[in-house]
Amino acid sequence: MPIITLLTDFGLQDYFVGAMKGAILSINPAASIVDITHEIPSHNIRAAAFNLLASYQDFPAGTIHTAVVDPGVGSDRRPILIECAKQVFVGPDNGIFSWVCAREKRFRAFHLTNQEFFADPVSKTFHGRDIFAPVAASLSNGVGPKEFGPMIDDPIQLETLKPGRVDNAVTEASIIHIDRFGKCITNLTPDDFDEGGLSVAGLSVNGREVSSERDFFADGEANKPELFYVFGSAGFLEIAAQNYSAATILGVQPGQPVILV
Amino acid sequence: MPIITLLTDFGLQDYFVGAMKGAILSINPAASIVDITHEIPSHNIRAAAFNLLASYQDFPAGTIHTAVVDPGVGSDRRPILIECAKQVFVGPDNGIFSWVCAREKRFRAFHLTNQEFFADPVSKTFHGRDIFAPVAASLSNGVGPKEFGPMIDDPIQLETLKPGRVDNAVTEASIIHIDRFGKCITNLTPDDFDEGGLSVAGLSVNGREVSSERDFFADGEANKPELFYVFGSAGFLEIAAQNYSAATILGVQPGQPVILV
Amino acid sequence: MPIITLLTDFGLQDYFVGAMKGAILSINPAASIVDITHEIPSHNIRAAAFNLLASYQDFPAGTIHTAVVDPGVGSDRRPILIECAKQVFVGPDNGIFSWVCAREKRFRAFHLTNQEFFADPVSKTFHGRDIFAPVAASLSNGVGPKEFGPMIDDPIQLETLKPGRVDNAVTEASIIHIDRFGKCITNLTPDDFDEGGLSVAGLSVNGREVSSERDFFADGEANKPELFYVFGSAGFLEIAAQNYSAATILGVQPGQPVILV
Repeated sequence: MPIITLLTDFGLQDYFVGAMKGAILSINPAASIVDITHEIPSHNIRAAAFNLLASYQDFPAGTIHTAVVDPGVGSDRRPILIECAKQVFVGPDNGIFSWVCAREKRFRAFHLTNQEFFADPVSKTFHGRDIFAPVAASLSNGVGPKEFGPMIDDPIQLETLKPGRVDNAVTEASIIHIDRFGKCITNLTPDDFDEGGLSVAGLSVNGREVSSERDFFADGEANKPELFYVFGSAGFLEIAAQNYSAATILGVQPGQPVILV
Repeated sequence: MPIITLLTDFGLQDYFVGAMKGAILSINPAASIVDITHEIPSHNIRAAAFNLLASYQDFPAGTIHTAVVDPGVGSDRRPILIECAKQVFVGPDNGIFSWVCAREKRFRAFHLTNQEFFADPVSKTFHGRDIFAPVAASLSNGVGPKEFGPMIDDPIQLETLKPGRVDNAVTEASIIHIDRFGKCITNLTPDDFDEGGLSVAGLSVNGREVSSERDFFADGEANKPELFYVFGSAGFLEIAAQNYSAATILGVQPGQPVILV
Repeated sequence: MPIITLLTDFGLQDYFVGAMKGAILSINPAASIVDITHEIPSHNIRAAAFNLLASYQDFPAGTIHTAVVDPGVGSDRRPILIECAKQVFVGPDNGIFSWVCAREKRFRAFHLTNQEFFADPVSKTFHGRDIFAPVAASLSNGVGPKEFGPMIDDPIQLETLKPGRVDNAVTEASIIHIDRFGKCITNLTPDDFDEGGLSVAGLSVNGREVSSERDFFADGEANKPELFYVFGSAGFLEIAAQNYSAATILGVQPGQPVILV
């Protein structure tokens, strides 16, 4: 059974996600549809890109990921598909897949132009239902990427996830995502530390030092809002506080600089 | 694989939706279950009717829609099923399916009386699990509509979705739904405009004129709370504001009159 | 198709649930995955235990329930599986399954120690993805419980759900759950009433008497915040108020004593 995932900012309150699933099942009734999340903050392409980056590797080869956070719907932004990591990614050309591509390095991108695979007519406001879901369903039926349109070599890229080096001793990283528990996910990975060693001499966020490391969340005092860092399940350094929101304690939003000395 | 959709006001916080799915899979383990939404405002039959109207056409023939917004559960309101548009609709007789029936014109309704297809015992408070899910599952197993009970010709109707004519020149429409983005969906369709032309001379809502049309949401200035109208993906005229809630700007709720001159 | 249910406190806003589903489908692409709920209040083991207790009987024999409310993730709390009621339960050893076991009386518990069935490596912070989802998927592929580790006879128990007897005439029960509608589910069952009779002489909660019984929710005046009790769909006595939150009217939280005279 081919797997099609959905990741959108449509929320669960309206019929939007149901309509996408109906469109998929009308073309491939045997598709196995999996929601990654539909609660991406409205139009937040970076939050969508992060959630996809944090989960695509958990899916098997052949999975088709449909990601629709699409403020430009109806404009001349291109609908695209990307082959990468033995999976396929379908959605708008706005950078939503670029962090996956940057990690994997090898990928092929195609501009979706063949209207034979779209709904007829295509609305101006709901390409999730009218373009991306039908294309994902046709892919799951075995249609090859080249059938959908020409290859392109310039898909839009988000800014890099790699932290900047201020000098040999100082790294300027940033918070790339805050999850529902208030954990602050940074763009620091084990590779950013000397020789792969994970000791952090000094980590400074919004004027606060975070100097305590933990191996897991329950590894310390539960009833004190103590900030600590941990290498989290998405592969990045996270700043957390057991039973508290680290983001609230720090007073930060995504994009906040993180200084590592 | 037969498709069974669910649309309720049960929310996702409790076990209710899971229990319905368990009841379905206990009768037909091969059913493909799709959530349309479970976040209908509590007891809001019109919101449920709108979301079903906006999405049923995206599903293939043979789909079984289970819609449970049911303030009268346990009372003498009838449980029904409706055959319409080559699909089947299962739920309480409170008008929830009537906008689909009015659009399609041809339908057959049945009173669910055959307890052989219900849970045993049937609770007084959870017919979603004890009547509607088991009936949907048996339908998906191939049981014919007539097996469930007698045909009826008087299912409850919600008021019509058709706008009223004040005189030849003035149409009184209304806002029938407000979505999570604050877009105001009216009951105006292309058919309501002269000769199918979509030009709107004047659209007035709660004392405000809305005179700007757009083809899609991103077609204009993003950082100004400018109201515009657009023919939306559900087939109705919508009043929207890019990156803002039109409903908040207008100060309106569903039911608000919309005057079209 | 083997059924795997998921019940967590991960919420739907992040990639967590999608990652668990990907991990399952990577091992068994034919698994039928059902969400019970992911909106358990963070770390609330009792709320998870209640929602599981209220729904497991709706699923067919052979269902595999994966429940991950796991404040101790990464610590030395044991990962376990429990065979009970012809179903299997997978999750942390923190009492989350104990109310099901107490109702069913017969069960077998196993400590999950065989890393062959885990992700490699196992993160310290996301055992839902790295241990419980893979184990559930392998179970659904037919691997027997004994393959995962040794049997244990001391899984952690939550306090009993049985109400206490103050004397022959007075029962001290409690509110074990409050649902999204504000209904207060108590731990009183039909068995707690004399000779199975359901008449309640006096029910007192937080200084308020609740003396009105209803058979169903719509059985009374809708526009008055009148408290009543009803035997609810989970098999327990519930205190409710039509169109109002009984919990708000009573000013109570889970754990609140309920005195029955």
